[in-house]
Amino acid sequence: MAHLTASVEYGLHCLLGLIGAGDAPRSARDLALFQGVSPSFAAKIFAKLEKAGIVTAAEGVRGGYRLARPADTISVLELVDAIEGRKPLFECQEIRARCPLFDGGAPDWATRGVCSIHAVMLKAEKAMRDALASETLADIGGRLERKAPETFDADTRSWFDARIAARRSRPAQAKDMQ
Amino acid sequence: MAHLTASVEYGLHCLLGLIGAGDAPRSARDLALFQGVSPSFAAKIFAKLEKAGIVTAAEGVRGGYRLARPADTISVLELVDAIEGRKPLFECQEIRARCPLFDGGAPDWATRGVCSIHAVMLKAEKAMRDALASETLADIGGRLERKAPETFDADTRSWFDARIAARRSRPAQAKDMQ
Repeated sequence: MAHLTASVEYGLHCLLGLIGAGDAPRSARDLALFQGVSPSFAAKIFAKLEKAGIVTAAEGVRGGYRLARPADTISVLELVDAIEGRKPLFECQEIRARCPLFDGGAPDWATRGVCSIHAVMLKAEKAMRDALASETLADIGGRLERKAPETFDADTRSWFDARIAARRSRPAQAKDMQ
Repeated sequence: MAHLTASVEYGLHCLLGLIGAGDAPRSARDLALFQGVSPSFAAKIFAKLEKAGIVTAAEGVRGGYRLARPADTISVLELVDAIEGRKPLFECQEIRARCPLFDGGAPDWATRGVCSIHAVMLKAEKAMRDALASETLADIGGRLERKAPETFDADTRSWFDARIAARRSRPAQAKDMQ
């Protein structure tokens, strides 16, 4: 399994749908359907993003989520940590203390500081995290925006507005549209 | 689960026991016992390291493994890839093609090049791999050597020699000593 799972992939794709939304909240379900991913999966991810202070929830028929901060202040590292929790690249089991020469009691020199193997892995993990910290949600959104035709933003707004309008006019089918 | 597993940890620790061995092969079982890790697990790891051309096997009572190349030419990245296989940090499912606005047929602009989210993950993966590539088995061994007392190297040789001597003198108990 990849270190960064589908939760990160789904979460980041759904958040792209909030960048251009301004003050208008969008529901986790609509954001998920707009990306073609599982709405129930997205609901769990948005609960984590809200807990981490990345999105805020708004109630009501037009309710849903908004970005809590400008997209250019939200780093990809923050998003990954909020969604996955902080998973280590490598877990050191302190094997260095087990050498039979130590006869069950590892001397101080053997366990002082960080294990040399663990140190290399921590360096690699830091390099990975620094790279994720150097990119923001706005950077990703900007690259998408430069590729998309001018009409895409307006078409996106229309799609989300139509979902909200349908929820208002057909309360009996609200379950499907939430 | 951490991205780099116990296989990498066990493999790297066991390989430290080959750095100072020179031309004398050391068995995977002895290398594992010297690190206090599972010999059967180590046997599987050494089979992968042999396949990757990092160690070579020698037959006989004094048989075992030798480093195929000087330790300062073996990068940690090579070891990780040999032991774990090349695991991606992130697997892109091309979610960008699923948007309902595309009506089942994603336009060229939407799927051209690498997905913007995948691109950030590839950048982070490259940073991690570059960090692993910048360190060698000799670098790790050198740090351990600087911490250890002068007698440690001789004590280590004596321990491995005693294992070989025991195998020669007590063939009936060979199974335990292999």
